[in-house]
Parts: sequence; C-alpha cells; structure tokens
Amino acid sequence: MSPIRSIGLPEIKSVMSDIDLLEEMKSGFLAYSRGECVIPPVGELILDDPAPGEVHIKYGYIRGGDRYVIKIASGFPLNRELGIQSGNGMMLLFNQRTGELDTILHDEAYLTDVRTAAAGALASRTLAPSEVDVLGIVGTGVQAALQLEHASRALGCTNALVWGRTPERVDLFREQFAGRGVDVEAAADVASLADSCRVIITCTSATEPLIEADWVRPGTHITAVGSDTPEKQELDVSLLARADRVVVDSLEQGRLRGEVARALSSGAINETGIIELGALLGDPTLGRMTDDEITVADLTGVAVQDLKIAEAVLRAL
Amino acid sequence: MSPIRSIGLPEIKSVMSDIDLLEEMKSGFLAYSRGECVIPPVGELILDDPAPGEVHIKYGYIRGGDRYVIKIASGFPLNRELGIQSGNGMMLLFNQRTGELDTILHDEAYLTDVRTAAAGALASRTLAPSEVDVLGIVGTGVQAALQLEHASRALGCTNALVWGRTPERVDLFREQFAGRGVDVEAAADVASLADSCRVIITCTSATEPLIEADWVRPGTHITAVGSDTPEKQELDVSLLARADRVVVDSLEQGRLRGEVARALSSGAINETGIIELGALLGDPTLGRMTDDEITVADLTGVAVQDLKIAEAVLRAL
Repeated sequence: MSPIRSIGLPEIKSVMSDIDLLEEMKSGFLAYSRGECVIPPVGELILDDPAPGEVHIKYGYIRGGDRYVIKIASGFPLNRELGIQSGNGMMLLFNQRTGELDTILHDEAYLTDVRTAAAGALASRTLAPSEVDVLGIVGTGVQAALQLEHASRALGCTNALVWGRTPERVDLFREQFAGRGVDVEAAADVASLADSCRVIITCTSATEPLIEADWVRPGTHITAVGSDTPEKQELDVSLLARADRVVVDSLEQGRLRGEVARALSSGAINETGIIELGALLGDPTLGRMTDDEITVADLTGVAVQDLKIAEAVLRAL
Repeated sequence: MSPIRSIGLPEIKSVMSDIDLLEEMKSGFLAYSRGECVIPPVGELILDDPAPGEVHIKYGYIRGGDRYVIKIASGFPLNRELGIQSGNGMMLLFNQRTGELDTILHDEAYLTDVRTAAAGALASRTLAPSEVDVLGIVGTGVQAALQLEHASRALGCTNALVWGRTPERVDLFREQFAGRGVDVEAAADVASLADSCRVIITCTSATEPLIEADWVRPGTHITAVGSDTPEKQELDVSLLARADRVVVDSLEQGRLRGEVARALSSGAINETGIIELGALLGDPTLGRMTDDEITVADLTGVAVQDLKIAEAVLRAL
C-alpha cells in the first residue's frame, strides 16, 4: 500500500491564494451538469444525544478522473459553549483505479466553507444585474464572512450591508472587515437590506423564511447558501415563485433539500424552468435576460465542489 | 482540537486476541434490534472507469454512546492484477458530543472482514442444530477463511468441507489450515457439500444462486454473508421459501440488499416471519425449535458491528 498523505489545516491554508477558486467551481459545475460525475445522494447522520449535531457525507467522482472524494462535514452548534468550533470536517481522497486511500485533508471544514463561498460568488457573479452598488449579506457567521469576501471580489463591489439577529455579532462581523477594502454597514432589518441591495446572499441556518417575496425589488439576484437540509429555509416560497429564474447547483439534490425543495413541495413552483448552475455556465442564454429580472440561486453543495477544491489543493502543494 | 489518533493495521492486529468478538457482535445486534441505534442507509459508490470497483460507507451510532463511526470499505477486483489487495478500508471514530475526529483506524478492511466473520459465527452458533459434525464453507477467499476460523471455534467443529470454483484456490485454502486443528477437505460440488454439512456458510461474490433448495437436508443451517448488494446472490430464493426460519442482521437493509431482498422481490417470501438476529439473541424462543428445521441467516453487515469492533480495539489498545 502506498503511503497516505495527511495534510493539516495550516498547510492547506498556505496554498489557497494559488488557487483560482471560481474557476475550479465552474469546471466542477460544468462537469456535473454535463453528466460526467457520479454523485450518490448525500449521507446524513442526525444526532441529538448527548448534544444536537448533524453530519453530512458527500462523495463522488468525475468519470475518467484520478481520485474519488469522500467528504465528511459536521455541525454541532453547542460546541461554542465548550469553546470549540461548531463546524468540523475532513476530505478523503482515494485512488479511482484501486480504492486505496491517497490523501487525508484534515481541513476542519475549512475547505467546505471556502468552496461554498466560492460557489456563492460564482452564482452571484453569473446572475447579478449589470450594476451592483451594494452587496447584501444575511447572516454573521463564518460562511457569511467568506461569502462577503469572495462575492465582493467577484462582483467588484466595495459596499455591503449585513443583517443578523444579534447586534453584537453584527458588530463583530463589521470589525472583521475593517481595513479590508469593503465598507460594511449594518442593516436595520432584512426588508431594508433587500431594498438597498441588488445582490443578496443568505447564509444562515434559519428554519423559517427570512426574506419575503414583496421585499425584493426587480433587478435583484439572491443566492441562498444556508439551507442544505429538508428542514432549513431562508426564502419565502413565493419569492421563488416570483423569480424569473431559479437556479440550483444540483437538481437532484434540490428536489430533496434547500429552498427549491420547500418551494416544490409547497406547490409554489414546479420543476419546469429550474436550471442547473452548470448548464447556465455552459450556456449564458439560460441566465438573466434583463436588469429587471429577479433571479434566485439555491445552493445545497455538491460533492464535485469538494473534489475540485481538494484536487486543486493537492496540485498547489 | 484534540489530537487525532491514527492507528495502523499491525497495531490493530496486535490486540485482536484480547477481544471477545462474538460478545461484541452480540451486544451490537441486541442494541440494534432494540432500536437503540441510528444507522442511515448504506452509502454506495460504484466505479467502472478506469477499473470496476465498489465502495460502501456504513455509519451510525448508539444513542447515548461516546462515538459515532463512519466506515469506508472498498472492493476493486482488478487490484489483484496489480499485485495489491482488492479490499481496502478504514474506520473513522468521531466524538458523539462534538463531531471532532477522534481516531482513524487504518485497518485496510481487516476489521470489516473480522466483524463479518464474527457475525457469521455468531449467527451460525445461534441457529445451528445440536450436532454439527462437518462445517461447510462455500468460497475460498479471505472471508471464507475467516468464517471457517471463527465458526469452527464457535461451533466446536473440527471438520470442514470447502467448495470453490477454482481447484487451485481450494488447494491454497486447505493449505492455510494445515496444522490449525481443523481438518479441511475439498467438496466435489456444492450439492455434495450441502449433503454432508449441517452448517453451511456462503462467502462468495456470486450473482447467481450457488445452492438450490432441494440440495439442503432438513436440520441444516445456512449463513449467507457474501451478498451485500442488490445484485449479488448466493442462495436460490426457493431455499428461503423452504426455510423454517429466515434471520437477517437488519430488516431495513435486508429489504434492499442480499438474499432476503431477492427472495422478497421475487415473491418467494414475504416479510412476515423474518426475524432480526438481535431480536433472536434477546429471545431464543424465536430461533430454531427442532433439529429438523432448515434455518437461513442472511447478513449484509450493519454499521453497529463496525462501531462495536472499533470501540473494542480502542479499549484494548
């Protein structure tokens, strides 16, 4: 058996600036929507004793590739009380010809966070109207900060509004961006954020809608990344019904998880007209047609993103 | 983050003799059939390019326990041509309260093989008739050898018949047991093996039945461990129909995989009367009633076995 490479978080972080994350995500979504990937349904383990937690297992490969990935990511919200991070995870890369374990990326969920943010930025850039003066971020956690970082860069937007339930967290969030070239202001509420922002990214673990359909102005794009289970929801289903385009990373996953699953099961929308991000990236005529349209991208996270970022890290190392 | 323990195969093997494997499996099956476990459906990744392979992900936990397990096991049959083993695997143990990775057991599928053999021996001992003069093993691979080792010990049986498709492999199999206290003879065919053996264990990757119903004499117990996917099959469905008791490790998995799935979908049997091994271990009146009955145990392998053997290794180390 070949030696197994075990790579820790500092080493992973040291090479991130060498990776064109949006290009990696783009090539992954293109391959996915061309049917070149084998990606089984997401494995899910729900815990409640002695503490609530959830574990997602995402796995798959690109046909004819070198490696398959098995990615394990967990969220244990009460970890904060113990002084440890709530998110955790690792990516395992296996030889696609032999099944031998090749590399363990002990990324502690960092790569999942980054690839999620990169996909959000990619979807936002692809569907944004031509002028975006202010970027709206709903949420104040790790993912919210990463979305702001990546999307502001992708959109060339230096003004942002942020909303969160807890004012102290909003303040901490704003402080993180001090001196980083993006002016971040606090929004009084989600409705006023929606009124001011032509791109809005939601990244919370909400289980009730945070954005109502009639708060959103024509010419707005919304990327929802928080909802990745059947239970979570950030957008009112009528907002998806009102949208001119609804885009998902994976239609197969979108039927089961996230905003689209909610909107489909409520009858607010049907599958006709839902487009995969990879299809849209391959054919821009499927995307936004005018600056007045409302577009929604619902991302639940696909294993091909994990494979792409993991292989990019290996190449960069 | 606490340091991650990484344990290799030699270290794992060094403590195996300290573990009462059948007791570990018994307590696992008891907990499983009492409904104390959370075990999602098996994850499965099928590969065909550049080489055929299959990967199974089994995972879960016992409520109120210390750790959850994610077990990855693969089989790549063409590895033999490359001079490397076809089976591979690892077990990951995570803190059930926080999701933190606790231990990686780099067992290269050894623990899966051993826990499968221990479960086979447990099922065979539990359902065997009172007198077993000759143990029958169908198959000559790694699992066949382990089943013979564990079942002959559990049954106190020192005579075995083995059948395999390839005479050279049968010879190699017999050589492995030279001087180990079990007299292993080659069977001319499966029918004559069935005629001579009151306990038969099948451990092949067959996709067509190897044992016909009318070859099996009254008073025989058969444990089938080879079939763990919807495609594989070792027993004719009419043998399950003829059996007085049909036992599965997991009814939920048995509906989808293995001999029972085949027999159910063909209509040869229905679910009424199928008993879980854990239920039978808890209530022996559910098992064999007379020495004339035919009993079948169909084992597809349950994550609680992985958890039990992994935790036993950690305790023994």
